[in-house]
Amino acid sequence: MNTAIASPDAANLPVDQYMTAVGQAARVAATAMAAASTAAKNNALLALAAQIRQHAGELKARNESDVMAAERNGLSAPMVDRLRLTDKVIATMAESCEQVAALPDPVGEMTNLRRRPTGITVGQMRVPIGVFGMIYESRPNVTIEAASLAIKSGNACVLRGGSEAIHSNLALWKLVQAALTQVGLPADAVQLVQTTDRAAVGQLITMPQYVDVIIPRGGKGLIERISAEAKVPVIKHLDGNCHTYVDSEVDLDLAVKVTDNAKTQKYSPCNATESLLVHAKQAAAFLPRMGAVFAAKGVEMRCDARAKAILADVKDAQVVDATEQDWSEEYLAPVIAVKVVDSLDEAITHINRYGSHHTDSILTTNHPNGMRFIREVDSASVMINASTRFADGFEYGLGAEIGISTDKFHARGPVGLEGLTSMKFVVLGQGEIRT
Amino acid sequence: MNTAIASPDAANLPVDQYMTAVGQAARVAATAMAAASTAAKNNALLALAAQIRQHAGELKARNESDVMAAERNGLSAPMVDRLRLTDKVIATMAESCEQVAALPDPVGEMTNLRRRPTGITVGQMRVPIGVFGMIYESRPNVTIEAASLAIKSGNACVLRGGSEAIHSNLALWKLVQAALTQVGLPADAVQLVQTTDRAAVGQLITMPQYVDVIIPRGGKGLIERISAEAKVPVIKHLDGNCHTYVDSEVDLDLAVKVTDNAKTQKYSPCNATESLLVHAKQAAAFLPRMGAVFAAKGVEMRCDARAKAILADVKDAQVVDATEQDWSEEYLAPVIAVKVVDSLDEAITHINRYGSHHTDSILTTNHPNGMRFIREVDSASVMINASTRFADGFEYGLGAEIGISTDKFHARGPVGLEGLTSMKFVVLGQGEIRT
Repeated sequence: MNTAIASPDAANLPVDQYMTAVGQAARVAATAMAAASTAAKNNALLALAAQIRQHAGELKARNESDVMAAERNGLSAPMVDRLRLTDKVIATMAESCEQVAALPDPVGEMTNLRRRPTGITVGQMRVPIGVFGMIYESRPNVTIEAASLAIKSGNACVLRGGSEAIHSNLALWKLVQAALTQVGLPADAVQLVQTTDRAAVGQLITMPQYVDVIIPRGGKGLIERISAEAKVPVIKHLDGNCHTYVDSEVDLDLAVKVTDNAKTQKYSPCNATESLLVHAKQAAAFLPRMGAVFAAKGVEMRCDARAKAILADVKDAQVVDATEQDWSEEYLAPVIAVKVVDSLDEAITHINRYGSHHTDSILTTNHPNGMRFIREVDSASVMINASTRFADGFEYGLGAEIGISTDKFHARGPVGLEGLTSMKFVVLGQGEIRT
Repeated sequence: MNTAIASPDAANLPVDQYMTAVGQAARVAATAMAAASTAAKNNALLALAAQIRQHAGELKARNESDVMAAERNGLSAPMVDRLRLTDKVIATMAESCEQVAALPDPVGEMTNLRRRPTGITVGQMRVPIGVFGMIYESRPNVTIEAASLAIKSGNACVLRGGSEAIHSNLALWKLVQAALTQVGLPADAVQLVQTTDRAAVGQLITMPQYVDVIIPRGGKGLIERISAEAKVPVIKHLDGNCHTYVDSEVDLDLAVKVTDNAKTQKYSPCNATESLLVHAKQAAAFLPRMGAVFAAKGVEMRCDARAKAILADVKDAQVVDATEQDWSEEYLAPVIAVKVVDSLDEAITHINRYGSHHTDSILTTNHPNGMRFIREVDSASVMINASTRFADGFEYGLGAEIGISTDKFHARGPVGLEGLTSMKFVVLGQGEIRT
């Protein structure tokens, strides 16, 4: 394994000087990465895939020390699982690098070039953002995901993984540096914060001169803390309180199938449906069928009075009175809030008030209702007749996903390579002057 | 004049409660504006143009009290001039509303709708950002500019003008409210902060629950203060240290003409050239001709040693030794920094190091050099063979300009109506579920 790391070394510096050195090195590397050829970037990704496969044994050994420490420290079984670099996880990391290499290069795209009356031709060119910082927990494969997206998008990045994964992350990072060096790209294009000192995070998110954007991945607490303290833009998503709304005119079979999928296909993702709204006209026909599905799968239903009156009769149904809090809740569990509404307007108002602006779907056969819903529901993803579970960078065809944004500024919804770029104006002239 | 203002009233509330009420009212209005039809928005703009023309006399009377107070308080003559609502300024305000009405509606545009392997069709829809806050100084016509762009883009806005223009701004704002009411749009879509209390600004820029983005217009001090304290994104530009670079292969007539225009057509705009870089191969041929033009126009040249050696011989030339500080300076005056460089690389490195990432132009006949320059110079606008003075929303064909951004996040360069919108994902299905 290549261990020659030229990047700033945490061991010899106080944390503030170390982070400044990391920031400076990232800024320098970003300039070279922005000018790097597509071929060089793709070669780096293929070299990284090869490095990962070649050093699988060493990766597992380094990972084992993290896993043992995690078990010693009493981390929960799911946390330890997420930490583990199995053969399968290692193979997937290598493949994902090859997949990112196969994506089109977003950098250099020129669009909307139009001649102006003055004679100049004006358009826009897509360029990297510069330097992004990524802050994440436990899963060490995020190191490779973030590194590969940084390389492809021509950015530099500074990665700060969880302290519980530090040995795994360091081992993975060395492979990234080796791959970059191998193809003549700057090793500092991808840096890993080598210290687990928390002060390093505080500094990473407050140096706009070196870092252009922060992408946190982890629990809500982490993301809220980072957003509150950051002095640079943050691409983040907080809650996923997604709604499925069954409209007054609807194909009932479709509605049962899609609502079932949106809630129960997987309970933990942020795009799972947490609230079900049903138009009063369909409640008596739809809710007993839906309730039977939920009852069979052990999904608890927190209902308003009208929904409860209908669902109470369903065999084995777990029906509970909803509180005001339930309309805002992200359960990530076999629980769903259920409410009967009298109109499309009431549904839209409810979603815009209680939702988290993540993903909401209308199930309807009525075209104007569908169009009003997708126009007026103020969420990152709005859907007609589809499961909210589709809200995902891969399902949307972005090829890769660096994060999800529930903000409206810059990127909204799943963020792919383009979210790591911006458009600058280009002007092509023949000596035109302004008069 | 319609004086029925339903918006929160500053007179009856402490400033913090007043600003909270303003924010809440803006958020409510934003929902209605997002759903407003193109026809309603255009009608509001045409009604506003009519209101402005109809009430020109009253506007001038209210403006006169601001102008008199400004003169009493010893404001500089240019400041008082910017404050003045002349017949010409009033006519231009009315026309600009009509021009904005004639622009295409950015809201509702759907792009990139593509079928995915799962059967769903995924694309993006352009929607308003929500609420923007605008903070500006002296010129009261900005009230109408901002209001008209807010209306057209389907956003709500909160305007905070300078205290020296408060009577003019209040009078203009009442016309905006009248126009909105006339066509059935919410009057609170455009609110003006009615108090000159500075605490109102502090609150406006720190309420992300009500305001999505802040656009400051004014001196660098104002913009720096707002950027440092804001808790929401800020669309801003700080410095305009723009460069013109005369390459090793160049049409000298074109180079003299364009450089002259870039520097001297107007000294005060942020897109005027402040630094001139000349390739060593062209220095002996280009600089004497350029220097003669600058000498004739009284432009002081702050030179490195090589440029000085050539320019010192030019008749009447004001040649001064450049200091390190000169390479970073935004003069906004008949002064230019001049440096001889040995290569395109040196020019690009110099610009990326000392420039302000605003606008930079290469004058060249060499295609690869031109392409490398526009790719590698990290600025909001990059040009080949054109005057930096073209960096402007109207010259670029945006139709309107709400501000200029030297940031890379969200919008970069001149910001038009699209900069006040974001793209959400839309998914059109026929009952697809995730497997």
